[in-house]
Amino acid sequence: MTITAPPLSSPLRPSGRRPEQMRLIRLTPAANKYAEGSCLVEYGDTKVLCTASIDEKVPSFLRNSGKGWVTAEYGMLPRSTHSRSDREAARGKQSGRTQEIQRLIGRALRSAINLADLGERQIKIDCDVLQADGGTRTAAISGAWVALWWACQNLLTQKLITTHPLAVQVAAVSCGIYQGITVLDLDYAEDSAAETDGNFILTNQNGIIEIQATAEKTPFNDDEFLAMLRLARLGVAEIFALQRAAIAPAIGQK
Amino acid sequence: MTITAPPLSSPLRPSGRRPEQMRLIRLTPAANKYAEGSCLVEYGDTKVLCTASIDEKVPSFLRNSGKGWVTAEYGMLPRSTHSRSDREAARGKQSGRTQEIQRLIGRALRSAINLADLGERQIKIDCDVLQADGGTRTAAISGAWVALWWACQNLLTQKLITTHPLAVQVAAVSCGIYQGITVLDLDYAEDSAAETDGNFILTNQNGIIEIQATAEKTPFNDDEFLAMLRLARLGVAEIFALQRAAIAPAIGQK
Amino acid sequence: MTITAPPLSSPLRPSGRRPEQMRLIRLTPAANKYAEGSCLVEYGDTKVLCTASIDEKVPSFLRNSGKGWVTAEYGMLPRSTHSRSDREAARGKQSGRTQEIQRLIGRALRSAINLADLGERQIKIDCDVLQADGGTRTAAISGAWVALWWACQNLLTQKLITTHPLAVQVAAVSCGIYQGITVLDLDYAEDSAAETDGNFILTNQNGIIEIQATAEKTPFNDDEFLAMLRLARLGVAEIFALQRAAIAPAIGQK
Amino acid sequence: MTITAPPLSSPLRPSGRRPEQMRLIRLTPAANKYAEGSCLVEYGDTKVLCTASIDEKVPSFLRNSGKGWVTAEYGMLPRSTHSRSDREAARGKQSGRTQEIQRLIGRALRSAINLADLGERQIKIDCDVLQADGGTRTAAISGAWVALWWACQNLLTQKLITTHPLAVQVAAVSCGIYQGITVLDLDYAEDSAAETDGNFILTNQNGIIEIQATAEKTPFNDDEFLAMLRLARLGVAEIFALQRAAIAPAIGQK
Amino acid sequence: MTITAPPLSSPLRPSGRRPEQMRLIRLTPAANKYAEGSCLVEYGDTKVLCTASIDEKVPSFLRNSGKGWVTAEYGMLPRSTHSRSDREAARGKQSGRTQEIQRLIGRALRSAINLADLGERQIKIDCDVLQADGGTRTAAISGAWVALWWACQNLLTQKLITTHPLAVQVAAVSCGIYQGITVLDLDYAEDSAAETDGNFILTNQNGIIEIQATAEKTPFNDDEFLAMLRLARLGVAEIFALQRAAIAPAIGQK
Amino acid sequence: MTITAPPLSSPLRPSGRRPEQMRLIRLTPAANKYAEGSCLVEYGDTKVLCTASIDEKVPSFLRNSGKGWVTAEYGMLPRSTHSRSDREAARGKQSGRTQEIQRLIGRALRSAINLADLGERQIKIDCDVLQADGGTRTAAISGAWVALWWACQNLLTQKLITTHPLAVQVAAVSCGIYQGITVLDLDYAEDSAAETDGNFILTNQNGIIEIQATAEKTPFNDDEFLAMLRLARLGVAEIFALQRAAIAPAIGQK
Repeated sequence: MTITAPPLSSPLRPSGRRPEQMRLIRLTPAANKYAEGSCLVEYGDTKVLCTASIDEKVPSFLRNSGKGWVTAEYGMLPRSTHSRSDREAARGKQSGRTQEIQRLIGRALRSAINLADLGERQIKIDCDVLQADGGTRTAAISGAWVALWWACQNLLTQKLITTHPLAVQVAAVSCGIYQGITVLDLDYAEDSAAETDGNFILTNQNGIIEIQATAEKTPFNDDEFLAMLRLARLGVAEIFALQRAAIAPAIGQK
Repeated sequence: MTITAPPLSSPLRPSGRRPEQMRLIRLTPAANKYAEGSCLVEYGDTKVLCTASIDEKVPSFLRNSGKGWVTAEYGMLPRSTHSRSDREAARGKQSGRTQEIQRLIGRALRSAINLADLGERQIKIDCDVLQADGGTRTAAISGAWVALWWACQNLLTQKLITTHPLAVQVAAVSCGIYQGITVLDLDYAEDSAAETDGNFILTNQNGIIEIQATAEKTPFNDDEFLAMLRLARLGVAEIFALQRAAIAPAIGQK
Repeated sequence: MTITAPPLSSPLRPSGRRPEQMRLIRLTPAANKYAEGSCLVEYGDTKVLCTASIDEKVPSFLRNSGKGWVTAEYGMLPRSTHSRSDREAARGKQSGRTQEIQRLIGRALRSAINLADLGERQIKIDCDVLQADGGTRTAAISGAWVALWWACQNLLTQKLITTHPLAVQVAAVSCGIYQGITVLDLDYAEDSAAETDGNFILTNQNGIIEIQATAEKTPFNDDEFLAMLRLARLGVAEIFALQRAAIAPAIGQK
Repeated sequence: MTITAPPLSSPLRPSGRRPEQMRLIRLTPAANKYAEGSCLVEYGDTKVLCTASIDEKVPSFLRNSGKGWVTAEYGMLPRSTHSRSDREAARGKQSGRTQEIQRLIGRALRSAINLADLGERQIKIDCDVLQADGGTRTAAISGAWVALWWACQNLLTQKLITTHPLAVQVAAVSCGIYQGITVLDLDYAEDSAAETDGNFILTNQNGIIEIQATAEKTPFNDDEFLAMLRLARLGVAEIFALQRAAIAPAIGQK
Repeated sequence: MTITAPPLSSPLRPSGRRPEQMRLIRLTPAANKYAEGSCLVEYGDTKVLCTASIDEKVPSFLRNSGKGWVTAEYGMLPRSTHSRSDREAARGKQSGRTQEIQRLIGRALRSAINLADLGERQIKIDCDVLQADGGTRTAAISGAWVALWWACQNLLTQKLITTHPLAVQVAAVSCGIYQGITVLDLDYAEDSAAETDGNFILTNQNGIIEIQATAEKTPFNDDEFLAMLRLARLGVAEIFALQRAAIAPAIGQK
Repeated sequence: MTITAPPLSSPLRPSGRRPEQMRLIRLTPAANKYAEGSCLVEYGDTKVLCTASIDEKVPSFLRNSGKGWVTAEYGMLPRSTHSRSDREAARGKQSGRTQEIQRLIGRALRSAINLADLGERQIKIDCDVLQADGGTRTAAISGAWVALWWACQNLLTQKLITTHPLAVQVAAVSCGIYQGITVLDLDYAEDSAAETDGNFILTNQNGIIEIQATAEKTPFNDDEFLAMLRLARLGVAEIFALQRAAIAPAIGQK
């Protein structure tokens, strides 16, 4: 279930990776015994446990609409990071960053799913970061797609729905400009020093679901932006293959 | 201080505007008696009061660094919207949307300012929406830049700094795909029905500070994205002119 | 819509006003595009935006009673004051002062309205201070009355009610003892230094709705109290005239 | 330590009291083993435990000023009332009513004490309602004065201060208009049905510290207000005598 | 209603008590005018006011079950302790200690009551510490039992239930190892210095409801544990007698 | 690193285990890349990730004492349980149960460590439940001991301390009475139906650190309690062996 990038190293990146080289990606489905769908996603040392829980109640604005909903929550274990962070439950509120990320994950998955085919029920995605080495939000999205797929498959198997509502694949990867070079899938060492940082959420049909690109230090230009977008397409191609492998047992593929 | 767009109307947009036509934009500096810098910004019926308050204390991570900081807060009056929303102070917390927007405003302004020239002090930007008809975050950024500029000018006049730290103009505008047409500066009627919605924060030197583009319903493609970016450049050109007018009294221009 | 006090100045008060002289008062109705009723009220440099929002749901204790309810919320923009205050939404709770003031506004308006004539619905008043130079709570009450009146008129026009439920006018003004002199309508310079400070909420039929008078430094006596009450009656007479002007378009008066 | 009012009853009030008759008042000093000053105050069935705790730290705005501070907190036990109320600690915040009352108590006591004679320390008053039958805030003020007096006496005995800083007595009582009659010291049965309700905080030197009078149903007039003020002076005279008794052991009086 | 332990003193304990000697225990029923059941419990200088309030609504998980529920809340007045503690309502949350204790009280009482005989209603116990000298949680349980008994008796008298649901007595006492000696009913001086501290909640039929024993400094062994349990049985025997006296008026005993 | 219990099954327990049979226990040290010490502990399907983070600051009451401190936090991932629970960070507070457990873990570890040998620093233990099948608090304690041991070893290796401060082993296990039989190491199926449930925190030197035993339905007696204690000693013996294996690489054992 693992695709290893060729071992040619490069002096440009702290990890020795070439600019267009992803970290080692793993998607391990069924990582939790109870959830209707789950996936442990790893982008190198970044590890996120994604679960999908089916709730037969929908938010009040969807009652009697016949349509379903997908929502997401995100959290980091206090020592998932290099130095320990405060526990959000102890501080009594989620940070702005946490809320921004969980809104992003939910929005991305809702764009990909046919909410009418899901029926009037809600799927709650939980993305909990066990270890963080940069790119947790992009890893979360790629893994959450697998968890969501299995939860839907579960409904299909139980004949609670008739059509699998997740027809399009969604994956995400970061790109950035690090020491003047456009690089793919930033790890923490790069992320904390990059001039520009972008997250690209893309579909396996060449569509764009969401783009967020930010100049951390100096404004970037159109060409730099387009170079990042091109690298991102390379990166997600690899993840799409691994997602298909992670759902292969159900769809009878190899 | 107002530039009126030509009155040719179009049946395509609810407002009758042509696809590349901005709403009537106004930037009124000195809109608050006490703040070191302030600006009332209007994008049509969207009205945001922006103030810049100088605080001689910096966050602890900058103490003794010689560098300053810019931070932003955002809020909406409960009845700024079509139907009344709950007051965040009464609910006891800021929504994820509020936090996302205020983080965006702060990040955009910090990208434009020379924090060393500001000296070891903090400028707090408050963007309070008096009336909301779509595009509040982009209006807030364009108006906040004017408030921030005047607060810096204030420091310069008092000889507390020697160089105006805000050398580059920053403005923001939204673009979207509405009924298949790429349009500029969405109002609420368009925003709530658009297929795709993007916010572009740009500099007057052709740089990109931040881009956020989201497919609300169906994924978009590269060409659609580039068309939005081109429209955005048209829109901010108009705002840059109005910003210069809003600071003209100090820089001796007309 | 403005009544200017005669320009005779006095050395006794920081503003040069005579003891019985109000600041310049303005009441601008329809200050918000969406609210069912609204009014921008100014007492000199104090500016409060008041909106009235109709909600067809009443609090649970009034369900099936046939009676309505009026409630109020109050807030200050962070930089409405001379130096910036923390944003209550960011701190996560409303201060005791805020709660005290919004309870006062709600109580005052409920005393003036016929809740049975309003029908089983709720009107929510929002008073947001854009700029504060003393007397924000009294300005809020006088302006909220106008916003509430228009919201009721709106119901009447739509034939949702048959009798305008607001038959009595309510206005408020502060009085105090400043450097031994009893003065009307204190501004911030006086308020922060006054020996005694009182708020008087009165009706246009000589009734008293609420009186709060506090010795800030030394206790006061009955005569001083009565002198403040007499001045307050002078002050509200002026406001009652402006309130009538602010509702004149609807009642066919000039 | 108890003054019993004459037993002549009246049909006008639920309790059978005459209009100008107080409930049975008790002030029991030293009601808590640990506090520097304490008093259990009873106004009939209303019972409030008041403690005064000395804290050698002052709020930051008084540091190095040589002046002290007095602050107060108020709470009700959940079943102090006829039907159980939610516990504020469990709900996670103090109600607006609680905050309003504790601000009132603190303000009243600060008006009476010489903060310079107290020295740079803070006295924290806690008023906890064990049983509530109307008038808890007025009982709290009268009892808190005794607790505060003993805490100051304690400082004097320890020679930490040289002058007792509490030279004036402060007591409070409610008055109201009940079924058209002006009555003194309302109990719950009257309070919940009164047309008008006022709280009077007065000194033993004929001064007024604070007056709050509110029309619950119909506005009141000047004469009614003055009648309430006259009754209040009768009521506090009785309390002043009991306060002197409660501090008699220290001042060598009977 | 009081049993005094023999006055033989001992040099081993700060209070001079013998190892197996309880403090003076008092249980005063009907200590609150409004509650359906109440008891002021004193273990020496520790004083806790316990009330039982009947609520005809049960938690949702018991609706239509025919069964009732008992729940408890615990609080300390800020100056119940030697030095003043923060008020939990002001801090905005209950401490972990408070929650632990109130969960313990509720659990203990639910173990003793026949929830089916109680019928589909809830009894809410409030235990508020007026003065704390160690052992507040054990005092609270012993007193809460009396309050709960009277609330049930109240239901029986009103013929709302047919069988008194509280057939077994529950009382609690602490034991500990203090300077190497196993002692009963620790006061604050002992509690804060004990090597081991345990709370024993026992029934009058030799049953154990809950045991919590903690090594504060060094681990203890089985024999030490059993010695504490034996002392605890002695202590509760005394409390059971006082509980019977506190309910005697209803059961016609002396 | 795994000891498998003999496969003899029993009809008495849902899992087929014999009364005195533990689940399969695993202790995997170094389960987190960044923490100074860490351990993934598994009691059957219960999985808890424990990390130990060194913080050079101590709580203020220990400043300049030369002594260190150990504290613990506990959390459950929302879908660690059979059905999804609310995320505590989203609800804005930790439940009473969470606080009770994290206080228990901290207390247990502090009893075992020599705080003077640790030096003036704090070790923060985080126990995050990835999957919950009963016994999470006991698993957390056994695993936290390993994480804490490695964090101390880390200090020793860096020569920041001279003596390993954790000389005694601490482990915990639950026992209960399930369908009349005393059983060891309850899983969720047993835990939710047990008559009595106890947690035993014991040392490898026969000492008791903490005992909590609760009658869920009917009171238990002394013999039943002692039977549970005996079983618990059997259970922890197994865990002590696995703890030694988990630290073997450092202490040169096999």
